Amino acid sequence: MKLATLRRNGRDGRLALVSRDLTRCLLVPEIAPTLQAALDDWGNVAPRLADRANALELSPDHPKSMRFDPAQCAAPLPRAYHWVDGSAYVNHVELVRKARGVEMPASFWTDPLVYQGGSDDLLGAHDDAPFGDEAWGIDLEAEVAVITDDVAMGTPVDAAAGRIRLITLVNDWSLRNLIPGELAKGFGFYQSKPATAFAPVAVTPDELGDAWRDCKVHLPLITRINGADFGHPDAGTDMTFNFAQLIAHVTKTRRLGAGAIVGSGTVSNHDRSRGSSCLAEKRMLEQIEHGTISTSFLKFGDRVQIEMRGAGGDNIFGTLDNRVVRA
Amino acid sequence: MKLATLRRNGRDGRLALVSRDLTRCLLVPEIAPTLQAALDDWGNVAPRLADRANALELSPDHPKSMRFDPAQCAAPLPRAYHWVDGSAYVNHVELVRKARGVEMPASFWTDPLVYQGGSDDLLGAHDDAPFGDEAWGIDLEAEVAVITDDVAMGTPVDAAAGRIRLITLVNDWSLRNLIPGELAKGFGFYQSKPATAFAPVAVTPDELGDAWRDCKVHLPLITRINGADFGHPDAGTDMTFNFAQLIAHVTKTRRLGAGAIVGSGTVSNHDRSRGSSCLAEKRMLEQIEHGTISTSFLKFGDRVQIEMRGAGGDNIFGTLDNRVVRA
Repeated sequence: MKLATLRRNGRDGRLALVSRDLTRCLLVPEIAPTLQAALDDWGNVAPRLADRANALELSPDHPKSMRFDPAQCAAPLPRAYHWVDGSAYVNHVELVRKARGVEMPASFWTDPLVYQGGSDDLLGAHDDAPFGDEAWGIDLEAEVAVITDDVAMGTPVDAAAGRIRLITLVNDWSLRNLIPGELAKGFGFYQSKPATAFAPVAVTPDELGDAWRDCKVHLPLITRINGADFGHPDAGTDMTFNFAQLIAHVTKTRRLGAGAIVGSGTVSNHDRSRGSSCLAEKRMLEQIEHGTISTSFLKFGDRVQIEMRGAGGDNIFGTLDNRVVRA
Repeated sequence: MKLATLRRNGRDGRLALVSRDLTRCLLVPEIAPTLQAALDDWGNVAPRLADRANALELSPDHPKSMRFDPAQCAAPLPRAYHWVDGSAYVNHVELVRKARGVEMPASFWTDPLVYQGGSDDLLGAHDDAPFGDEAWGIDLEAEVAVITDDVAMGTPVDAAAGRIRLITLVNDWSLRNLIPGELAKGFGFYQSKPATAFAPVAVTPDELGDAWRDCKVHLPLITRINGADFGHPDAGTDMTFNFAQLIAHVTKTRRLGAGAIVGSGTVSNHDRSRGSSCLAEKRMLEQIEHGTISTSFLKFGDRVQIEMRGAGGDNIFGTLDNRVVRA
């Protein structure tokens, strides 16, 4: 099933089921008022949601259904209790480190790298993304993310896979020119990672069919900047750590609460013809190939769109469509 | 007023007003079911809570009041949307870095250092603190923390002060032997920072009277390990960045949502006779003074108590009283 959060009734919005073709939706207050409430009691709530989703799918004229408008969506979780982002495409990490003039340790190929992002202010798919200064080096990062159930401390990889409840897409905006100074302090990102934006819709893994295997999404992640194709690397290719491995890593010393969001990190393929999912990578490739960087970071007014399409061309999660604006 | 969360009715517990002497409490479902709900609408809710708190204070036989049992408390926010911890006692940072053999940049005296902690699983004042392995180097970190209202991006220091709603104490457990490897990866703490524990009670700043000035708490923070005094440094002394400065720092590029928790970092005084608020500092001081370390990290079964007492000896926030256990 496909789930979205409509921007109404306060900070956490209202949970809606969305038809597979993203044309219609249905509020389900009698089952769960919000997505967090559904995740808090997933075992009981999910079967009831699935029944209702089937009814919506089978009845184009379902009396309570409404037109689905992604511009009315908050992030699926407008605020969440945990947002941890991996760097599973290690090839990308190596390139970005090169861009910063830093050598990547070999252990990065076997030990996942994660950082924790702000989760109290998550942007919807059509929200403006506000930044204080273009000089901060505004960049996108197109990623896949999963939303988990409760996960116990010390969960092994094979058990972690079964704790994934939903899959969605994110744009984990980065402020590239704030990163070197912040990382030099030794405690990781904070100011350099502003509010993350989310696709309109989160889906259960079964919605992806064969494209969800090995705890990876085997489909191209499409990014457009100001309407022009920027990249379409396959999210299932070159993903060194799958989502189960990332979850096992983050639960080594702590529990995750229901509704925790775990990101893949910027999707990146060795095959350069697939383009990139962030400007930093493209700039580094220009530097390597041409000895000079021709691509600049984002400017106020720029528009970034991110989406993923199934084998039949269907838009699975809806499109992130955010504009960079002055705060 | 003083607020606590009783462990009932699901994941977020139930908000209770607590008498100043911590002997009695009162549920207030008709005003706000949970502390997060109160913070989400603080402007409207706080005056009503204050009225009820006064009634509780004035009526020792208030018909609906109950005995207050801190062992029944979850963390004031059992899960929160944001938990960012500063390192405001720069003297301590310098010592701990020395212990890791790392030089501290001079900018640390002017530019706050923060990291983001897990907020989906916060421990109550009497909860066991579970760890997988004593070899991880289990340490306490006794700190003061504030809980904010919504704070806009780019909030200046003078405006940040007015966004502080509540004050409490935390034990930000650290896994010292996991830190060097994790920080070497460059993205900051994650596995080395397990679930943080909280005092039973959070209080509005007015409860501290003169002890709350300059956005600092001017009282000793008392730590006992297995019943023995470990430290009582003054939290208002040697705090290089006050809470308003920390909030201004963290909102440079993002908003904070109501209920965000901002920590002071380990409280530490230049005056060594006050003792320490973490073992790492004590171990470093032993190394410097005696050339050898005699204090070990915590073992399973060890008990850590943290509290703060007013001028009259009253226990302001209740006592954190957690036992270190094997996960």
